Amino acid sequence: MAHPADMVEIWRGRMVESRHRGHAVICDSRGGIVACWGDPEALILPRSSCKMIQALPLVESGAADAAGLTTEHLALACASHQGAPVHVGKLARWLESMGLSEADLRCGSQPSRDRAERNRMICAKEAPNQLYNNCSGKHAGFLTLGRHLGAGPDYVEIDHPVQVAVRAAFEEVTGMASPAHVVDGCSAPNFATGLRGLARAMAVFATARSDAADARARAAWRLTQAMLAHPDLVAGDGRACTELMRATEGKAAVKTGAEGVFAAILPEKGLGVALKIEDGATRASEAAITGLLVHMGALDPAHPAARRRLGGPITNWRGIATGAVRLAAGFA
Amino acid sequence: MAHPADMVEIWRGRMVESRHRGHAVICDSRGGIVACWGDPEALILPRSSCKMIQALPLVESGAADAAGLTTEHLALACASHQGAPVHVGKLARWLESMGLSEADLRCGSQPSRDRAERNRMICAKEAPNQLYNNCSGKHAGFLTLGRHLGAGPDYVEIDHPVQVAVRAAFEEVTGMASPAHVVDGCSAPNFATGLRGLARAMAVFATARSDAADARARAAWRLTQAMLAHPDLVAGDGRACTELMRATEGKAAVKTGAEGVFAAILPEKGLGVALKIEDGATRASEAAITGLLVHMGALDPAHPAARRRLGGPITNWRGIATGAVRLAAGFA
Repeated sequence: MAHPADMVEIWRGRMVESRHRGHAVICDSRGGIVACWGDPEALILPRSSCKMIQALPLVESGAADAAGLTTEHLALACASHQGAPVHVGKLARWLESMGLSEADLRCGSQPSRDRAERNRMICAKEAPNQLYNNCSGKHAGFLTLGRHLGAGPDYVEIDHPVQVAVRAAFEEVTGMASPAHVVDGCSAPNFATGLRGLARAMAVFATARSDAADARARAAWRLTQAMLAHPDLVAGDGRACTELMRATEGKAAVKTGAEGVFAAILPEKGLGVALKIEDGATRASEAAITGLLVHMGALDPAHPAARRRLGGPITNWRGIATGAVRLAAGFA
Repeated sequence: MAHPADMVEIWRGRMVESRHRGHAVICDSRGGIVACWGDPEALILPRSSCKMIQALPLVESGAADAAGLTTEHLALACASHQGAPVHVGKLARWLESMGLSEADLRCGSQPSRDRAERNRMICAKEAPNQLYNNCSGKHAGFLTLGRHLGAGPDYVEIDHPVQVAVRAAFEEVTGMASPAHVVDGCSAPNFATGLRGLARAMAVFATARSDAADARARAAWRLTQAMLAHPDLVAGDGRACTELMRATEGKAAVKTGAEGVFAAILPEKGLGVALKIEDGATRASEAAITGLLVHMGALDPAHPAARRRLGGPITNWRGIATGAVRLAAGFA
């Protein structure tokens, strides 16, 4: 097993104050490695980076069409949204259209990460509800699939038909049996896989076509297109996924996951990317995916969305530039 | 140079999801190494972990006594407080007693980290001011010393008499010339040192006595006693420094710093501790100092303050236990 590679440095003045190591791999859709840093076989929990995989059964089963879901709904199913009114409103109407409500979700309540909305709720003494959970779109997708399958309400149980379908799709696109699963932050199962497996899955999405014979490939194409069409719904204003998708102008659909994971689908190149920062830091996973997108020619390093995560100054409480985030020598 | 040591593991289910590495050293007051993990000579920026060192000239110069400062003021000078009303109120009165105001600070405005106070200010549309900056106590100390020295208002400049005095004290207690300095989050200079130097300095504090012949030793004793007497002023309710100092019942004065630094003074043992997490993660520095305090017999691992940072369950948005923070094999 290869050691993690040095990936990201946090500079302050002329010193490297902190360092982040990790694993990254660029794959084709058969799992062939195009480039890698660290250990491409590192076993990881993809967390929210695999939401588009978790949404495959929703589309390929016909459940999405039966429920009349649009590309906005599909983008929300792939989202870690920040609980802005635009997200919560669309999700409330989605559940309502199925005769369901917030109480049918199993993701738990989370305060909004949209500053204005959070502040509004604090001042109105309005408690957050499950719609505000960053995973509520994924859960709305699970509920839609569960209803289509005629299954019971406890869709986060590991042996529920929804999760059985998710696991099957997950193992097929990653190309490996998942050796373990855990309970995610939103209480849904999250399946472990190799980093190369996650990158391979992203390449399966990248090479999927609208006219494929295979229902799963058509589903992968639709989900990728939905993410690319609605970067604002996949995360929110100011968020890395939203800003980087806008900046890459259709060249990459990207998705973050907790504990330093990032995945990217590059349709023009037919390639997938996955990375995991060993220590779980989001600042490092965002810098690393920015570096990889630049490396692959999908992102201008001078774009403000790139500079905010890589190279641009770190400033202090008085606005004084104190340092910068940089890639380690030898990475990307 | 020794590699960083594995220190802290973030478990989810039966998997280690993320890992933190770092350096740690336990020293006596002459810099003799009692125990170490990783590289004891690692060059670090101590950040806020060295505030008690930065407060030495305030006390040893006689400025603190001339200004009538109490142990509460000295605790605030060593603090990274969370901007609760208790902190901000005492600091406002301190400045007022010198005929100064919030506008004389150079630390910059930071929102309160005390939830009730932050929410109150949001709803009252009250902007944060510099008193709320976690470093405003250190800066009030700098202002007090500057006035005593008859120096100008720009006390964060590297050649200002206050910073010249801080640097001299810093280099003497760490036992080494500082090879570099940077601009800290609060705009004050922060001096680089070896990890062993920081631990040695903590041991200088640990062995200081009230009846020492040396004014610096008496100052170190007074500052340590002030921290131990007012753990609530050094950080705030729920914070690691406050909770761990309360839990160790006088056995340790501890201080966190940005980017994964922690320092501890153990008067009963006459020893100092310093640690740096390579990736800068606070969750890991808190777990590691907890482990070291337990290792040194200063903290009960079953105490809630310890369990919250090490061993106790990580829970998700529905309160389900999903994992735990544990020490890596071979550390502490």
